Amino acid sequence: MEVLTSKTELRDWLADRRSRPRVLVPTMGALHRGHTSLFDRAREEADALGGEVVATIFVNPVQFGPNEDFDAYPRPLEADLAQCREHGVDAVFVPVVADMYEGDRSITVTETRLSTTLCGASRPGHFDGVCTVVAKLFLLTQPDAAVFGEKDYQQLAVIRRMVRDLDFPVRILAGATVREEDGLALSSRNVYLTPEQRAQAPILQRTLAATAQGIAEGRFATPQAAREGFLEAFGEATLARLDYFEIVDAASLEAVEYFGKAELRLLAAAFFGKTRLIDNVGVGRVALG
Amino acid sequence: MEVLTSKTELRDWLADRRSRPRVLVPTMGALHRGHTSLFDRAREEADALGGEVVATIFVNPVQFGPNEDFDAYPRPLEADLAQCREHGVDAVFVPVVADMYEGDRSITVTETRLSTTLCGASRPGHFDGVCTVVAKLFLLTQPDAAVFGEKDYQQLAVIRRMVRDLDFPVRILAGATVREEDGLALSSRNVYLTPEQRAQAPILQRTLAATAQGIAEGRFATPQAAREGFLEAFGEATLARLDYFEIVDAASLEAVEYFGKAELRLLAAAFFGKTRLIDNVGVGRVALG
Repeated sequence: MEVLTSKTELRDWLADRRSRPRVLVPTMGALHRGHTSLFDRAREEADALGGEVVATIFVNPVQFGPNEDFDAYPRPLEADLAQCREHGVDAVFVPVVADMYEGDRSITVTETRLSTTLCGASRPGHFDGVCTVVAKLFLLTQPDAAVFGEKDYQQLAVIRRMVRDLDFPVRILAGATVREEDGLALSSRNVYLTPEQRAQAPILQRTLAATAQGIAEGRFATPQAAREGFLEAFGEATLARLDYFEIVDAASLEAVEYFGKAELRLLAAAFFGKTRLIDNVGVGRVALG
Repeated sequence: MEVLTSKTELRDWLADRRSRPRVLVPTMGALHRGHTSLFDRAREEADALGGEVVATIFVNPVQFGPNEDFDAYPRPLEADLAQCREHGVDAVFVPVVADMYEGDRSITVTETRLSTTLCGASRPGHFDGVCTVVAKLFLLTQPDAAVFGEKDYQQLAVIRRMVRDLDFPVRILAGATVREEDGLALSSRNVYLTPEQRAQAPILQRTLAATAQGIAEGRFATPQAAREGFLEAFGEATLARLDYFEIVDAASLEAVEYFGKAELRLLAAAFFGKTRLIDNVGVGRVALG
């Protein structure tokens, strides 16, 4: 596995293999099974194309707010590289901030519709920072496809929108959320939970899944009824404070006002103490409409 | 010469020649000798690379302000295609607006430093629209190099900045401004000038050039003195109303406060009646500091 620590090294490495297919997995490191499942998905795709897997590890300052944890964000590089190696990554791009961003940088890729709700509502500028760094990583690594996790569903939708609106020649592949046995979505933040919080945390996924099933089975006539069902069931999580729950069009992320033919996604975020967890599920289309 | 009228046709055409070098010339059509000189420059570059020239003709609605002339902008397609043919263009991409922009588009490439002054001051959003469409055209045509005219110097600087900040793998080539015999820069707008205005219009270029020469020869101790020199000389143009005159760093477009080692550019815009003309010149570095 090649470890490329600068844009120059990356470009030199790419120069010999410009025409080889490539599948990209952008990460911020601190890798867990959620990430390695994306590497596995990328490996599968790359093998089908006869190509290579490129991962990137870059804690992107531009997507962190002023009061967020950019400095404290974990950077266990050796362990991360070992995980890349074990999961079939061919090259890892690990640039430093000064190589990625000039001091007088003045170009940003902005998104103005999908970014304003859900997690974006409390993180102004976050998805612009994500779009900007992903655009740069696409342009630097020139992939045929790139894999993003469904765990960050809003991010996935924003990236798909960027690819559509800017005509990036990159196929976006979604990796399913990896969960603990009790349903809790894997997250670097789960370690911050107290044992009591950890015991309650799976309610987030359970309630999302139950609500989605209720919609699919026609037990909720309206999004409003489904919302009330969710809130009542989530009330069991006595240690949680709900940040948001939304039933949205899976592509536009717009809240739906009635159940029609749109593919739906249910998303929620909740605080357990200071730890904010997010999760989301789809709705089976079979029983709808 | 291929005429490609949709993204699908363009992608099909490119599919066979993905690895061939390409030089792009983006235009809004209504082509004159200023544009064809860019085609010639692109042809030269493409020949050196053993590649092809792709031109685009697209009147980009996103870079026009609400009170600007998007609808009235001339679209002499047949004449434009003839000029492309005569100047060695291999393929012309001529998309319609609905193919380039989805109704719910929400991604914009924004520029926040170089765009705020000069022409950008009176055209909010203009350079964001330029960046967005040029990013799309780069991603659609995947060129090795692209040619932009120095006539629109601020646009050239903004595009260079976009390429730097987003890591586009595209070399930007500048085409020198093409002028009438009396020095007036070619522009589609020159036809709007009355005979009297047309007779005075070359003062813009003459005064810029004289000021640049004065700086190069050390006759102005400070940018402020050079500015006064420009304003005095430009006063001869009794039919003109100056919009701006600036002496800036050629790369950052920031106004300089003293003459140091920075490469300088002098830019001006002036109204002759309702017709707004722009021009710019460099300063020879020989005699400087």
